[in-house]
Amino acid sequence: MTEVEIKKILNAIKDSDLSVDDAFDNLKELPFKDLGFAMIDNHREIRVGCPEVIYGGGKTTEQIREIIKFMLTKKNNILATRVGDEVYEAVKDFDPRLMYNKLGRTITLELNAIKKTEDYIAIISAGTSDIPVVEEAKETALILGNKVKIINDVGVAGIHRLFSKLDVIRKAKVIIVVAGMEGALASVIGGLVEKPIIAVPTSVGYGASLNGIAALLSMLNSCASGVSVVNIDNGFGAAYNASIINKL
Amino acid sequence: MTEVEIKKILNAIKDSDLSVDDAFDNLKELPFKDLGFAMIDNHREIRVGCPEVIYGGGKTTEQIREIIKFMLTKKNNILATRVGDEVYEAVKDFDPRLMYNKLGRTITLELNAIKKTEDYIAIISAGTSDIPVVEEAKETALILGNKVKIINDVGVAGIHRLFSKLDVIRKAKVIIVVAGMEGALASVIGGLVEKPIIAVPTSVGYGASLNGIAALLSMLNSCASGVSVVNIDNGFGAAYNASIINKL
Amino acid sequence: MTEVEIKKILNAIKDSDLSVDDAFDNLKELPFKDLGFAMIDNHREIRVGCPEVIYGGGKTTEQIREIIKFMLTKKNNILATRVGDEVYEAVKDFDPRLMYNKLGRTITLELNAIKKTEDYIAIISAGTSDIPVVEEAKETALILGNKVKIINDVGVAGIHRLFSKLDVIRKAKVIIVVAGMEGALASVIGGLVEKPIIAVPTSVGYGASLNGIAALLSMLNSCASGVSVVNIDNGFGAAYNASIINKL
Amino acid sequence: MTEVEIKKILNAIKDSDLSVDDAFDNLKELPFKDLGFAMIDNHREIRVGCPEVIYGGGKTTEQIREIIKFMLTKKNNILATRVGDEVYEAVKDFDPRLMYNKLGRTITLELNAIKKTEDYIAIISAGTSDIPVVEEAKETALILGNKVKIINDVGVAGIHRLFSKLDVIRKAKVIIVVAGMEGALASVIGGLVEKPIIAVPTSVGYGASLNGIAALLSMLNSCASGVSVVNIDNGFGAAYNASIINKL
Amino acid sequence: MTEVEIKKILNAIKDSDLSVDDAFDNLKELPFKDLGFAMIDNHREIRVGCPEVIYGGGKTTEQIREIIKFMLTKKNNILATRVGDEVYEAVKDFDPRLMYNKLGRTITLELNAIKKTEDYIAIISAGTSDIPVVEEAKETALILGNKVKIINDVGVAGIHRLFSKLDVIRKAKVIIVVAGMEGALASVIGGLVEKPIIAVPTSVGYGASLNGIAALLSMLNSCASGVSVVNIDNGFGAAYNASIINKL
Amino acid sequence: MTEVEIKKILNAIKDSDLSVDDAFDNLKELPFKDLGFAMIDNHREIRVGCPEVIYGGGKTTEQIREIIKFMLTKKNNILATRVGDEVYEAVKDFDPRLMYNKLGRTITLELNAIKKTEDYIAIISAGTSDIPVVEEAKETALILGNKVKIINDVGVAGIHRLFSKLDVIRKAKVIIVVAGMEGALASVIGGLVEKPIIAVPTSVGYGASLNGIAALLSMLNSCASGVSVVNIDNGFGAAYNASIINKL
Amino acid sequence: MTEVEIKKILNAIKDSDLSVDDAFDNLKELPFKDLGFAMIDNHREIRVGCPEVIYGGGKTTEQIREIIKFMLTKKNNILATRVGDEVYEAVKDFDPRLMYNKLGRTITLELNAIKKTEDYIAIISAGTSDIPVVEEAKETALILGNKVKIINDVGVAGIHRLFSKLDVIRKAKVIIVVAGMEGALASVIGGLVEKPIIAVPTSVGYGASLNGIAALLSMLNSCASGVSVVNIDNGFGAAYNASIINKL
Amino acid sequence: MTEVEIKKILNAIKDSDLSVDDAFDNLKELPFKDLGFAMIDNHREIRVGCPEVIYGGGKTTEQIREIIKFMLTKKNNILATRVGDEVYEAVKDFDPRLMYNKLGRTITLELNAIKKTEDYIAIISAGTSDIPVVEEAKETALILGNKVKIINDVGVAGIHRLFSKLDVIRKAKVIIVVAGMEGALASVIGGLVEKPIIAVPTSVGYGASLNGIAALLSMLNSCASGVSVVNIDNGFGAAYNASIINKL
Repeated sequence: MTEVEIKKILNAIKDSDLSVDDAFDNLKELPFKDLGFAMIDNHREIRVGCPEVIYGGGKTTEQIREIIKFMLTKKNNILATRVGDEVYEAVKDFDPRLMYNKLGRTITLELNAIKKTEDYIAIISAGTSDIPVVEEAKETALILGNKVKIINDVGVAGIHRLFSKLDVIRKAKVIIVVAGMEGALASVIGGLVEKPIIAVPTSVGYGASLNGIAALLSMLNSCASGVSVVNIDNGFGAAYNASIINKL
Repeated sequence: MTEVEIKKILNAIKDSDLSVDDAFDNLKELPFKDLGFAMIDNHREIRVGCPEVIYGGGKTTEQIREIIKFMLTKKNNILATRVGDEVYEAVKDFDPRLMYNKLGRTITLELNAIKKTEDYIAIISAGTSDIPVVEEAKETALILGNKVKIINDVGVAGIHRLFSKLDVIRKAKVIIVVAGMEGALASVIGGLVEKPIIAVPTSVGYGASLNGIAALLSMLNSCASGVSVVNIDNGFGAAYNASIINKL
Repeated sequence: MTEVEIKKILNAIKDSDLSVDDAFDNLKELPFKDLGFAMIDNHREIRVGCPEVIYGGGKTTEQIREIIKFMLTKKNNILATRVGDEVYEAVKDFDPRLMYNKLGRTITLELNAIKKTEDYIAIISAGTSDIPVVEEAKETALILGNKVKIINDVGVAGIHRLFSKLDVIRKAKVIIVVAGMEGALASVIGGLVEKPIIAVPTSVGYGASLNGIAALLSMLNSCASGVSVVNIDNGFGAAYNASIINKL
Repeated sequence: MTEVEIKKILNAIKDSDLSVDDAFDNLKELPFKDLGFAMIDNHREIRVGCPEVIYGGGKTTEQIREIIKFMLTKKNNILATRVGDEVYEAVKDFDPRLMYNKLGRTITLELNAIKKTEDYIAIISAGTSDIPVVEEAKETALILGNKVKIINDVGVAGIHRLFSKLDVIRKAKVIIVVAGMEGALASVIGGLVEKPIIAVPTSVGYGASLNGIAALLSMLNSCASGVSVVNIDNGFGAAYNASIINKL
Repeated sequence: MTEVEIKKILNAIKDSDLSVDDAFDNLKELPFKDLGFAMIDNHREIRVGCPEVIYGGGKTTEQIREIIKFMLTKKNNILATRVGDEVYEAVKDFDPRLMYNKLGRTITLELNAIKKTEDYIAIISAGTSDIPVVEEAKETALILGNKVKIINDVGVAGIHRLFSKLDVIRKAKVIIVVAGMEGALASVIGGLVEKPIIAVPTSVGYGASLNGIAALLSMLNSCASGVSVVNIDNGFGAAYNASIINKL
Repeated sequence: MTEVEIKKILNAIKDSDLSVDDAFDNLKELPFKDLGFAMIDNHREIRVGCPEVIYGGGKTTEQIREIIKFMLTKKNNILATRVGDEVYEAVKDFDPRLMYNKLGRTITLELNAIKKTEDYIAIISAGTSDIPVVEEAKETALILGNKVKIINDVGVAGIHRLFSKLDVIRKAKVIIVVAGMEGALASVIGGLVEKPIIAVPTSVGYGASLNGIAALLSMLNSCASGVSVVNIDNGFGAAYNASIINKL
Repeated sequence: MTEVEIKKILNAIKDSDLSVDDAFDNLKELPFKDLGFAMIDNHREIRVGCPEVIYGGGKTTEQIREIIKFMLTKKNNILATRVGDEVYEAVKDFDPRLMYNKLGRTITLELNAIKKTEDYIAIISAGTSDIPVVEEAKETALILGNKVKIINDVGVAGIHRLFSKLDVIRKAKVIIVVAGMEGALASVIGGLVEKPIIAVPTSVGYGASLNGIAALLSMLNSCASGVSVVNIDNGFGAAYNASIINKL
Repeated sequence: MTEVEIKKILNAIKDSDLSVDDAFDNLKELPFKDLGFAMIDNHREIRVGCPEVIYGGGKTTEQIREIIKFMLTKKNNILATRVGDEVYEAVKDFDPRLMYNKLGRTITLELNAIKKTEDYIAIISAGTSDIPVVEEAKETALILGNKVKIINDVGVAGIHRLFSKLDVIRKAKVIIVVAGMEGALASVIGGLVEKPIIAVPTSVGYGASLNGIAALLSMLNSCASGVSVVNIDNGFGAAYNASIINKL
């Protein structure tokens, strides 16, 4: 609610077009709006095509099913992450356009057409075992309206593979690097490209990889200056972040 | 080196305008250039005003002194981080324009005028003890040519202080959140503002803060989606990152 | 046993009203009673309605079944925590009034009517995945005789949801905050409300949440001063604690 | 600002007693007040005698000196924690009533007489090395207006010492247990007394005490149900917490 | 092999009662024996009734089956730890006297009668969930020929239960304390009894118990001086250790 | 591509034996080759018999099946690690010579005969539970063309077993030590033998073994100077490493 | 106080040899005594020569000075651990017989002659850097009345040094093994000797020794069954423990 | 002592050339020699020029001084690591040829000329802050008789610097990679070069580098197969290891 709108209400009282009680009802929600909370509250609906996101981790199939059912009544685009086959089986009859990405474990639905960005996000992974995280990031980036280019399996153990793709990487507006084990790929790309890099450590590895802690620490200590980091296996967060940057 | 340039060399051989030995000398540097390494190598000098950065941690005063001395001969702008008074004392006579930020522990010199960005980076801290990291970030952002706005001491223990600054925060192009202890500020801002947020955990705290690990983990697990994280106390990295984004 | 009582026994000896052997028998239990151990021993039975609590973790269905069977003979109220469906199946025939909370994984039985408190405990959770812990806390608080109000899903990623509930929160006598991931909710409420806050970190999250360690550390480092913390997922402990405070 | 007050303003507009612009100025601060933020903001001044707290950790003597100087102009009571001798030396001339607790490393000033509670907080420590934390807690509790009883050096290695004090402990309204090393004292008291217990792990110990982590984990895993925990060495937080409970 | 035995061989050569080749064959095993390795090698067989111990962890049923089968041919007593029902099913037909302790997950066979010690080992546990470790310790102690007394469920949350058993505890020659969660029982007993105490942390607990690390650290930091510690859940090791001491 | 080869191409242009376009096509791959990347890229194929290695961890049976199928078309030797029975079942029909090592969880195929080294790698394990890692190392070393000698179950709890094998150990060119629990075997062998020792900590153990972290730390801190370490359970890496050394 | 003694008091009342008030004064300490607490309380004084132990860690020189001063008035033997030169300087004038062990950082005084044990404790260290812990253990063992034999610098990097001392080690009644770095010495001795072994990890080492955690974990995971462990650098605790065992 | 030698002694008895007592004296040292312990014991002296190594960490100047003094009498070459200026000051007068490497903190003395290897060890560091570790490795490698080539400051943040040195790196027989922060350099070199690589993580960095743990984990998880790892900052161990390999 802007200054103009508030003054309009006040003038309506003055002009006796609005009773004090009605005006009070209009104004009592003011706090949220003045603080911009209402923007938070409602901003997703304002822009056509922006999805509600359902984090499926720790929710039962039944719970997710109810949420998606409700959201479909709101005619929103949908992104559900960390959902298994059984969830997809439980919801697919709601709408034939619901898409399941088995590797990325996402369900998406683009009810409202999304305008794609000109610039693209490059999603780069070190190894084939990192692909599930890449897929989660990809689906997230797409449903948020981004153009995406994916480059898999260019880890530093065979660094020439990376170099042959440098051109595509350098032309991206923002880069997501997905790597497990020692996570060195983030630093190497950070040393080669002057673009914002969002590093996603993955839980790929064993033993002293400590379920991704090794890659996480590695990325946080990157000697390349343009690297920031999200949680282990957090393909969604990286893509959400990248999307904000890509749309700047 | 483009395809055109390479073929020009080859044609010169064909036309006997260039000996095979001379052509070989031209071509043997090709790898770096084709791969763009030379861009990396030289890109800092290309843009006027971009500083060489000296990470002072673990270097002796003498070493830093020699590096700065050498860099001054190159007429570059300078940013040295993690340097104490004794370093400043050792170098200040080189050039009276060398500036020392005592809290931020940085030395800067803007030899070549830097064109400032239109957009600004907001640097927000939770408490007064986080200010050294804020200052490191500020000096870095400034010498990299960014406009900067700083909002200190708006931690969640008195969340109303934050709300009164929401306007300034929302208008930033990119936001740096600096917080120690439980680092909750990053999540709160992430829930209020749809801008890229780079979170810097600080080592402020004691006991179970584990020298910043608590804040780091907190930020990595942020329930707000637009937050990425850099190393503990890494004001420089956050600002470098933010600068890349701010200039997109 | 008070000084008066002991001297009474000694006088009885002196007056030959009591043999030395009988006096000795009276006195040999003295330590426990003087130290109040017997109070400890028996204090639960003294107040009507106070349940015996069975921690089901690491016990077999058979063991829990035997304990509940025995307790029913004592006509006590019952609270069993961390019990699965199979436990409920194994005991439900004992008494039709045995209640199973599937989400909270508790079995309760209010054999003796419990007088409810005037004041209430507010149990607040950050997200829907925290609800199992909320339910354990709720069942514990209820069987201990507390009035309870529950506010779910008001995490800091959408902080306006929290603000709309501030009134209910502020009127509680004691507050339980249940949150996983970065656990920031405890600090935010601690900054807004001057009431005792018992924070329960949950294992909700993944990767660097380290099964709740991130939330735990976050809560221990809360910049808000009125927050104390119990073990990860310990809804029972939080409610037990809150109940003691609520009844002060 | 209550409904009555807001409607009064609106009626004043209606009655042309107030211009729209003036009314808007009155209303635009509404959000904070409705949300109670202003209460947060100002509530400390409202109750006479309530101190402003200065956390001295990571602040320079000069910074703390300026804060205390400013606070004295506000005629507030003062509590500064984690301050060394040099801070006291730097401020003691401001007011001869400033008190320094050398062991507890606190500076206090009771400018406005504080009404003491009827009930008392018991502060119990395991060993003499825990006394600095006890002293910080004591000073905090006192300046917040609580009656305090202190019982030092009753650790479980000589558990009979504890039992001789059980009476004093049981009569407290709330109990603070301060212990390092294995922190078992909290569990033992928790098993003996049905009162709210706030456990403070201390960094007393060496080797596998991990600077207090061992005691912290021990307390979090207490088999006694009435124990909640604050950060390592956080005497202030424990006392602040206990004070809120003591005043319920 | 003693000096006497060696010289006997050498004299046999001298007297031509033994060829050089035969003597060499006798002597070539000498190194082990002189160093006492042979004692290690063979010492188990020397004392009648001492079992070969099979650690079942990480071995397949088939492997354990083969080992037990082989050992039965050697007529040794047997102790197998960390074995499940399926192992017992696979071996029970070898000998009807093979005993399976379901809780302790041990298989034992006392083929050769074991002379029991006069003194006994007291095995004390904090809670019923610790009983599997108690049972492993008990079976180990018994098969090694010790008299054993067991006191379960005397954790510090109800410390009076412990005190009523102090007599039995004090009369033991060596004490094993088995406790999970915060492991305080070891310290409490250590403060009451001047006997060697071997503490076994258990993985009983959840969350910040870190699978027994909390209890382990607690016990290592015990403020009572007579406590030493073995690995988490290592009932076998504690009993083996206690047995050596009990037989001194 | 050597200087000689490049100049040959340039001379061919000069002599008009090669068109500029054809020469460009030859040269455009130059960067990799000059940097030696092409060597990396192709070096495996160059030496007959060198396998492509498939790390099966985190790959589905289907993925591994496709990779092996493809590799068979390339007539390469094959080594797949961390593969279960189900993988072998899925591929065994491709070629009857595919071998499955059940304990080591490897699939191998020596399509091209491998010339064995003269020197051998000694693989030594502390206990029978370490054998799976030994087997992975063995299969790796063999398919890479090494002679291998294996010595199992010589852990320090019965150190005489080790001494009887010292001869075989000392004659190896390089030694792999595989040990879990406290990993002391690496230090003991390192103190006895002046050969390169590659230590492999295993996840054998429980409780404070922390899934192999204890053995890992132990080996990293070895007081013997010739020990270097690879990841927990990384039999493949140790053997790959040892093979490089063995072929020096 | 035994049954006999108590009945004697009661009979004295009966016979009017003791007034009720005097009897009460005698009996009022009874609880402790019946529970044996008084034994704890006073037992040190009962046996001639047993010292009061002062743990100097975290105490100021002044505090330790006062404690020693007080103890000298009680004519007790004295053992102070973790005390620096400055403490010794501050107390040495109290009594010329106060002894300072500079390496072990202990002050001892044998005021009352101590009867030495027949059996001895062997204290064995891996390297010369472990000697301070050895010295603390030695002084503790001596003042507690034990015969002690010390064997330094027999770490596993030169295992033959250990073997030449096996005889002395095997004849000890109880063995203390002091080792830092990887702490393998405990396992090796545990594999060679069937005596109770108390392992003391030391903070000797750097990097991944994690201030003794590596050695601690190593010892806890010892594959030798007779090893129990005390806290890092806890020479006192090991010796106290060993002394109890040595006197069995 | 070989079989031939032993039989010679036995034959001498048989032939009465040797008394039984003399033969026994000859044989009683047999164990060490047969086991090769004597080789360990004496092997350093056998080869001219091999130094005794003194690890200076945790030793006082006085202790190191005495060891060096003693070693000089043995005419050995000397390597002392982790020694400060004050140690050098204390020993330099013993022999003017004692050399101090201030950065590497080593003292060396080549009393006996060392034959250098043909092949060289390449020591590569990521940044200038890693140079102290490089210097320790260099001095160690040199005094052990190796040819050494050093390449500093080729970390992956500017990977082109590394590529320009690939030739020198590839020609080494064994490679030491020294890197702190994220330690990615080891993986990158491991992906480019098929030589044994010994990675040394350094404690260079701050915050989440955890004093080198991040680099250590990174290197242990290297996706390149030829990398093994030594302790953090362990330049000595890496060089000792590399020397063994270089001399194969």
